[in-house]
Amino acid sequence: MSYFKHHVFFCLNEREGGEASCAPRGAKAAFDHCKAKVKAAGLAGPGGVRVNKAGCMDRCAGGPVAVVYPEGTWYTYVDRDDIDEIVESHLKNGRPVERLLLAPDIGR
Amino acid sequence: MSYFKHHVFFCLNEREGGEASCAPRGAKAAFDHCKAKVKAAGLAGPGGVRVNKAGCMDRCAGGPVAVVYPEGTWYTYVDRDDIDEIVESHLKNGRPVERLLLAPDIGR
Repeated sequence: MSYFKHHVFFCLNEREGGEASCAPRGAKAAFDHCKAKVKAAGLAGPGGVRVNKAGCMDRCAGGPVAVVYPEGTWYTYVDRDDIDEIVESHLKNGRPVERLLLAPDIGR
Repeated sequence: MSYFKHHVFFCLNEREGGEASCAPRGAKAAFDHCKAKVKAAGLAGPGGVRVNKAGCMDRCAGGPVAVVYPEGTWYTYVDRDDIDEIVESHLKNGRPVERLLLAPDIGR
């Protein structure tokens, strides 16, 4: 079994020269919000959920992006409501949020 | 199938006050070395390997640490030889490096 049941990585990267990237699209606020919600829900810790900062994950065109392992579910999100839904549906109840899934062909 | 066959996250965090953490133990050099080796081996990219920066993954007592997803294999490493072995054995040939596995009870 995985050390964390769900290990979530938020890209917080900012690219130079106005190229598409996650930081200018609210990634840090979403990360902070997700971390607080997971903690408040009592999900944080070994055997539970870890919400993690990450550098560029090379899928910038779909940013802001986050990925949940070990299941390998990639998300693109817009606002706090999206994060709340990911926490409630996926991280708490194990049901990925279909409407927020990153399309498989989205790369850098 | 996972977007990346192996997605490797290196903790590059530095904690305050002299607490155990990964940055002072050579994590950035190991990350750079791993990224360069993966690229040189032609393993990088979608369907292949991604070597990623990450913040604290909360297993600081075993630092420096890295984790490979989706398999959820946690490593602790010392030098470039360790990284070379992870790249060659695990990332290239799918065989985890037993001697470098992080003990399951190692936390913060």
